[in-house]
Amino acid sequence: MRVGMIGLGKMGLNLTKNMLDNGIEVVGFDLTTENVKAAEEAGAIAATSLEDLVSKLGDTKIAWLLLPAGKPTDATIEQLTTLLGKGDLVVDGGNSNFKDSMRHNEIVTAAGMYFFDCGTSGGQSGARNGGNFMIGGDDADIFAKYLDPIFKPISEEDGYLYTGKAGSGHYLKMVHNGIEYGMMQAIGEGFDVLENSQYDYDNEAVAKLWNHGSVVRSWLMELTEAAFANDPHLDELLGRMHSSGEGQWTLQEALEMQVPTPVIAMSLMMRYDSMRNPETNFTGKVVAAMRAGFGGHAVDKA
Amino acid sequence: MRVGMIGLGKMGLNLTKNMLDNGIEVVGFDLTTENVKAAEEAGAIAATSLEDLVSKLGDTKIAWLLLPAGKPTDATIEQLTTLLGKGDLVVDGGNSNFKDSMRHNEIVTAAGMYFFDCGTSGGQSGARNGGNFMIGGDDADIFAKYLDPIFKPISEEDGYLYTGKAGSGHYLKMVHNGIEYGMMQAIGEGFDVLENSQYDYDNEAVAKLWNHGSVVRSWLMELTEAAFANDPHLDELLGRMHSSGEGQWTLQEALEMQVPTPVIAMSLMMRYDSMRNPETNFTGKVVAAMRAGFGGHAVDKA
Repeated sequence: MRVGMIGLGKMGLNLTKNMLDNGIEVVGFDLTTENVKAAEEAGAIAATSLEDLVSKLGDTKIAWLLLPAGKPTDATIEQLTTLLGKGDLVVDGGNSNFKDSMRHNEIVTAAGMYFFDCGTSGGQSGARNGGNFMIGGDDADIFAKYLDPIFKPISEEDGYLYTGKAGSGHYLKMVHNGIEYGMMQAIGEGFDVLENSQYDYDNEAVAKLWNHGSVVRSWLMELTEAAFANDPHLDELLGRMHSSGEGQWTLQEALEMQVPTPVIAMSLMMRYDSMRNPETNFTGKVVAAMRAGFGGHAVDKA
Repeated sequence: MRVGMIGLGKMGLNLTKNMLDNGIEVVGFDLTTENVKAAEEAGAIAATSLEDLVSKLGDTKIAWLLLPAGKPTDATIEQLTTLLGKGDLVVDGGNSNFKDSMRHNEIVTAAGMYFFDCGTSGGQSGARNGGNFMIGGDDADIFAKYLDPIFKPISEEDGYLYTGKAGSGHYLKMVHNGIEYGMMQAIGEGFDVLENSQYDYDNEAVAKLWNHGSVVRSWLMELTEAAFANDPHLDELLGRMHSSGEGQWTLQEALEMQVPTPVIAMSLMMRYDSMRNPETNFTGKVVAAMRAGFGGHAVDKA
């Protein structure tokens, strides 16, 4: 099996290494040549352009994108429809809006190729060692034949799901992130109350305790524990809760369907609010620390 | 070691069995004689009254309450101060408001005894097989001498924490439950969006997927998975999200300190709202199913 990986940033490079570990050959391309070099050092075949990448793939080519959502993904998919042949596969493993993915599906399908939208969760460590994938695409047989053998070894056990029609993978990832926003905000608010209380809690000890048998035990609480172990009151961080789109999209979708999602909505609003008052925002510090923990997302230092 | 367990309901009986498994003798009392019988069948020594229970404890008696918060706990603690002697211990393992626990500490301390407030998490399965405990109390040495040897075997590994001054245990449990409300509401909202979407998701498969490597993996998501395995669209449930106080107390405390906790607040408001519109509330069904999963809390059947 051979995959053409387009985009060798944090996620793309980790996923490349994961594939290589599992006997999947990877041809890698990125606009930043340093990223290509890093992939080559890990054992991937370097490509100098999209054309070069395509030329180095075998029969039934698989082009796998891990690019920023929006224009970079749009433009690359359009270009791929002119470079790939009938029956080839395009997998968008980035965080595209599901409506874009439905449009991408139209374009790719019209060119005689197959499109799959793949939401990727589990953070950088997951991409590297066993990720979590939600994959949509109109042709279940093509998925089973060409992609299932790839997802199986690169996923956490039971960590991938073919979700049906094109768009359904990114839709599910969008909702996953909406839930994630709410869970993170809830954890942040709880520690904000503790930090302001009359008692003198050891934040790390509390998070550790809660990870050992409590109802709120979770990976996010483990990341919180690690953050407090490193910086007991997160003094080094500003409480800016950046967001990359999926929470907003979940809310837009809920609004369109008129499904009440007040907690996801408030989580998003508080992220916006945190951009204005990061100095005094302990909730924001906790959320920023979690985001750094799973995604390697940049934190703003105090 | 011998403990006097007062209140042998769901939590008290499971905790009694847990203690007995770990070589701790238990004298059990409950107003409902059937509950006392169940404890006796499990190996506990039956008591017919509080007086009888106290008479069957040894030196440095430990009276452990697992009673409904409010009047039952209040009245029992007052009575115990007349029955126990100087140097004896009162442990309130129920869900008392931390302000009540501070008051109970005054009363018990004035009578020459020691008071500990113990928040208990982990649900019924935790109480039975290894719980999660947050314990406040003014005297750390007394905790270390008499209670640490009891908490160690009955807890999940690393699953108990002495949190300092009286009230701090129940305060921490209160905040834990506030976080829990927010996490549960976020999960419920996410599945509400999926249930109303244009796609056809298998709720159980989604929850299972998310428990294998995703960022939102958690015990609550595992309980969600189990609920969907049993009833794919939760048709059997009404979406009533009952609440037992701690979420409300967390919000009251946040209001007093003027700490912004919008997600915990909205989670609580949506619980109240769900009492009015349970038929059409899918979020509520998901949350009710989780509550049943961890706490054996009653669900309202459709």
